Amino acid sequence: MAERSLIFPATEYRLRIARLQAGMAAQGLDALLLTTPADVFYTTGFLTRFWESPARPWFVVIPQAGDPVAVIPSIGADLMGRTWLRDIRTWDAPDPRDDGIGLLAETLAGVTPATGRIGLPMGPETHLRMPLADYAGLRARLAPRRFEDATACVQRVREIKSEAEIAKIRETSAIASRAFDRVPDFVQAGRSLADVFRDFQIALLAEGADWVSYVAGGAGVDGYGDVISPAGPEPVCRGDILMLDTGAVKDGYFCDFDRNYAIGPASDLARRAHAALWQATEDTLAALRPGLRACDVHVLLARGVQDRAMTPSGGRLGHGLGVTLTEWPSFTPLDETPLRAGMVLTLEPGCHTRDRRIMVHEEIVVLREDGSELLCPRAPAELPEITA
Amino acid sequence: MAERSLIFPATEYRLRIARLQAGMAAQGLDALLLTTPADVFYTTGFLTRFWESPARPWFVVIPQAGDPVAVIPSIGADLMGRTWLRDIRTWDAPDPRDDGIGLLAETLAGVTPATGRIGLPMGPETHLRMPLADYAGLRARLAPRRFEDATACVQRVREIKSEAEIAKIRETSAIASRAFDRVPDFVQAGRSLADVFRDFQIALLAEGADWVSYVAGGAGVDGYGDVISPAGPEPVCRGDILMLDTGAVKDGYFCDFDRNYAIGPASDLARRAHAALWQATEDTLAALRPGLRACDVHVLLARGVQDRAMTPSGGRLGHGLGVTLTEWPSFTPLDETPLRAGMVLTLEPGCHTRDRRIMVHEEIVVLREDGSELLCPRAPAELPEITA
Repeated sequence: MAERSLIFPATEYRLRIARLQAGMAAQGLDALLLTTPADVFYTTGFLTRFWESPARPWFVVIPQAGDPVAVIPSIGADLMGRTWLRDIRTWDAPDPRDDGIGLLAETLAGVTPATGRIGLPMGPETHLRMPLADYAGLRARLAPRRFEDATACVQRVREIKSEAEIAKIRETSAIASRAFDRVPDFVQAGRSLADVFRDFQIALLAEGADWVSYVAGGAGVDGYGDVISPAGPEPVCRGDILMLDTGAVKDGYFCDFDRNYAIGPASDLARRAHAALWQATEDTLAALRPGLRACDVHVLLARGVQDRAMTPSGGRLGHGLGVTLTEWPSFTPLDETPLRAGMVLTLEPGCHTRDRRIMVHEEIVVLREDGSELLCPRAPAELPEITA
Repeated sequence: MAERSLIFPATEYRLRIARLQAGMAAQGLDALLLTTPADVFYTTGFLTRFWESPARPWFVVIPQAGDPVAVIPSIGADLMGRTWLRDIRTWDAPDPRDDGIGLLAETLAGVTPATGRIGLPMGPETHLRMPLADYAGLRARLAPRRFEDATACVQRVREIKSEAEIAKIRETSAIASRAFDRVPDFVQAGRSLADVFRDFQIALLAEGADWVSYVAGGAGVDGYGDVISPAGPEPVCRGDILMLDTGAVKDGYFCDFDRNYAIGPASDLARRAHAALWQATEDTLAALRPGLRACDVHVLLARGVQDRAMTPSGGRLGHGLGVTLTEWPSFTPLDETPLRAGMVLTLEPGCHTRDRRIMVHEEIVVLREDGSELLCPRAPAELPEITA
């Protein structure tokens, strides 16, 4: 019988660990310490919404050779026991005297020589999900072992998705696409944006999302002011452009794309903006290939918008996607990350429409050796209108 | 016209800052640096689900005197501009050359003497939500200024809720209670636990939750194996005890409580376990008062379960609650935090039923000068039965 785990078969995780260990060897790392929900899920299949509680730290230790070791609060022993990991060490957390640091130090010392090097993600888009004082204590206990930045080691592995991961992201995207299809059923002029956000989340769940980690959007004449605000009681009005954006989750994998709708007949400006964003995306879909850098995609998207006589919005115009809502790289003028086959990316061009208003558009693709492949059903070329 | 902000009037935030600054003065801190969603929301009213993206750090600096300064990615300028904060400094993130650290260092240097002390939460239940390498860079730039642990400074303020906060938690709890009332409408023997979790989230949204950050639960004969696993395809069966637990969110404030249901007639063991948990909670509700320590509440709850001839489960038996799903203190034998009026707490006794099965029960209270006040409608004393 095949070795089992959660979400994927154990072979999937074993391949990930082998790739991480190859990167560790290249960097001369004796062990890798992971602390975040995404990194723990990626290496083990351990998926729980319990991370929402900040009370307890959770650790996975990856030695240079052999299987990972979980060092976790005992409340997680049952669930971690259903993953492929066999070495699961627990303590009764929260413990104000020693919240797992003794056990973690012992575990790391057991797989690292006395002058060894322990990798820890410390760079862009990372954080350490444990108390800083405990990290200082851990370093002191393990000295003269050194902690080193392992951001690149982790990111070069996680950014290349397996076919099993790509299938998961396609599935989550299909769920969201069906929910987007339902939007005309619950949006009418006069309904509050808060009610629209609520009904959109309900539609995502009804279509099969396990949970909805992210919904954002906006509504206004010819666009919206920002794209990260929660919804308020203000009504959606005839003449508005409504945008909804979601990071729904199925089996731990996110989608991240948005759709625009005109409430009543769309203005010429809104149609032109939508067409410019759609065509800039179309151009970029055709041009995307391994070997480009992230900053090259920024140029493609920005130029595509400019070529249709619109002004591109600032900020990044897309990013990686997978076990978090956004991953590296970023489509900005400054990010020189090389694109490689297997990367899942969002194309997210935006443009200014009028006084502090923007419109944005987003699709999800996987990069293949010979180009790009959409993972979500493509938005309609014409801005859809909802009868107000 | 009253000075406005998001969620609460500016006066609410000014009071919080004054209390934080009193704590800072007592500790000799010149500034306080905050990085997490909860701390940023608590001090400013800045509420967004965009934290789900790990790409960008966000900072709030609280000087020893005067108003806080937000140092944030420009994508958040519009939303932060609607809070009570007037000093909002932005950079175009993500920036691989300098992701806000120069701007943050300049801001901190502007409010801190050259040999000053900067507080940062480093203790239990905290983490630093920025890249560790950037924190090292920040320390180097600001030297000889020192960073010091400010966990107690923040926790002693946040743990005492204002009446406005208590009203918010009561409102979120009322939403969840109405969703719990709907459970018999969508639970029947044969439905998968995944579908039950999905419908429960839909019910929470339909009853008014802005979003659902946490749902957990379990189902099995006379109890469940753990309380943090996501739901799977296995059906809920006649004879099971189903437990649902939720941290729904309204206006940024969480509830956290659970309810049990028997699918079909309940066994004597399940009835006795439920009654023991309910009575242990009842005893504790009557005994709770300021001056007790967190560990004393653990004794009350554990003894209440034992007095009904059941064995208490391990781990903590309740905790604080507010702008995160769980807050300190923890009802464990080791936590000596003194309880004070204004604390919002969950009472969460559990007991073993049979072979690796437990049952748990949870209610939310606010501690008043003269005792406790429930913030959620009390669970029924008798274990409710759902016709299978």
